[in-house]
Amino acid sequence: MSWRASVLTLFPEMFPGVLGHSLLGRTLQKQLWSLDVRDIREHGLGKHRTVDDTPSGGGPGMVMRADVACAAVDAARAANPDVPAIYLSPRGTPLTQARVRDLASGPGVLLLCGRFEGLDQRAIEARSLEEISLGDFVLAGGEIAAQALIEAAVRLLPGVLGAEASPEEESFSHGLLEYPQYTRPQTFEGRDIPEVLTGGNHKEIAKWRQGEAERLTKARRPDLWTLFEKKKH
Amino acid sequence: MSWRASVLTLFPEMFPGVLGHSLLGRTLQKQLWSLDVRDIREHGLGKHRTVDDTPSGGGPGMVMRADVACAAVDAARAANPDVPAIYLSPRGTPLTQARVRDLASGPGVLLLCGRFEGLDQRAIEARSLEEISLGDFVLAGGEIAAQALIEAAVRLLPGVLGAEASPEEESFSHGLLEYPQYTRPQTFEGRDIPEVLTGGNHKEIAKWRQGEAERLTKARRPDLWTLFEKKKH
Repeated sequence: MSWRASVLTLFPEMFPGVLGHSLLGRTLQKQLWSLDVRDIREHGLGKHRTVDDTPSGGGPGMVMRADVACAAVDAARAANPDVPAIYLSPRGTPLTQARVRDLASGPGVLLLCGRFEGLDQRAIEARSLEEISLGDFVLAGGEIAAQALIEAAVRLLPGVLGAEASPEEESFSHGLLEYPQYTRPQTFEGRDIPEVLTGGNHKEIAKWRQGEAERLTKARRPDLWTLFEKKKH
Repeated sequence: MSWRASVLTLFPEMFPGVLGHSLLGRTLQKQLWSLDVRDIREHGLGKHRTVDDTPSGGGPGMVMRADVACAAVDAARAANPDVPAIYLSPRGTPLTQARVRDLASGPGVLLLCGRFEGLDQRAIEARSLEEISLGDFVLAGGEIAAQALIEAAVRLLPGVLGAEASPEEESFSHGLLEYPQYTRPQTFEGRDIPEVLTGGNHKEIAKWRQGEAERLTKARRPDLWTLFEKKKH
């Protein structure tokens, strides 16, 4: 069985979206991974297939019902058991490359995409949903976050990247941001490729790249830099 | 002129993607914002429309050429002047809701989606591209990141959300994660809605929600909690 992503959404037509093209689309067709998209509204109540209601205690917007969400999770779980069930929400723990690697090394994921003001807290507790956030910004729903998580995980699956790139030599793999890259032409608008990179001394090149990666990380991400320093000592 | 997103990508067929549906799709049709998607390959070189080359100094993968990327940026700029030009890359500064609010209050954005091992550093410098990252994970390209940034910004534009939700009362607006939400039914799998929320005492409800938001933030996001504490004093 290949790695399987089950997605629960009110907008199944948003999938595969970006995931249907390029590397992700080709490897989906080759069945290196699979995508199971399910409409939460199939579990909606009554003839209007209602999925939400007003927030207890008042406030704007609507909240997704616990009974509807859990019925949808249970149905998806039956088809994709033993995978972590994740609720994508800005309240969650920020996604990291370490968590992505964990998820890619397992059998797959079950992703519940939020909409409205949120999901009834009892659904999160009753199904032990892990809450994950992409970052400190607010989306209109969890669908783009689900596509980001899936793309990040699938590119780490065996056989997916092939010779197209190397998952090892990239940002975050060593706790640092990636060094700057250059390619032909030698001169562009009066700017030259740094001499060390065209000199052919591999030791010097590696040293320069490491120095640049450290400089960039220190300047842009003091949080990552502190972690990197701690690990070194 | 409505808010305008120009997107430079090697995969124009990935757009509008998620942005073509639901709230974003409806408001795009109503011209509350506009989307200008451009194929970087139109500026590729020779009969094969080459856009990349091997990294100077060696290493796996390919690097996007500075001349091609800058030609694409310049053409898009001519059609969408005076907007910030952003290169989406895991090396960038993490996107925050504060930056999203800034971008939403301006005339639009120009987004360059990376692919391969990266973009020639001279393109970033020559066009003063702002480097923005979604978070500490690696995608196969910048396209999902571009959709995330656009969705986050567009939902803050005047007239977009309407009565559907409130951008004010949500995660990060006050520097805290959002409090838990509940809705009917009163009891779900033996779990009740917290009494305070159904008691009708608005002062008590506000106090409970504030307490829960603080508790969650402290537990999940000590970084945000520290910032919140600093602001208070």
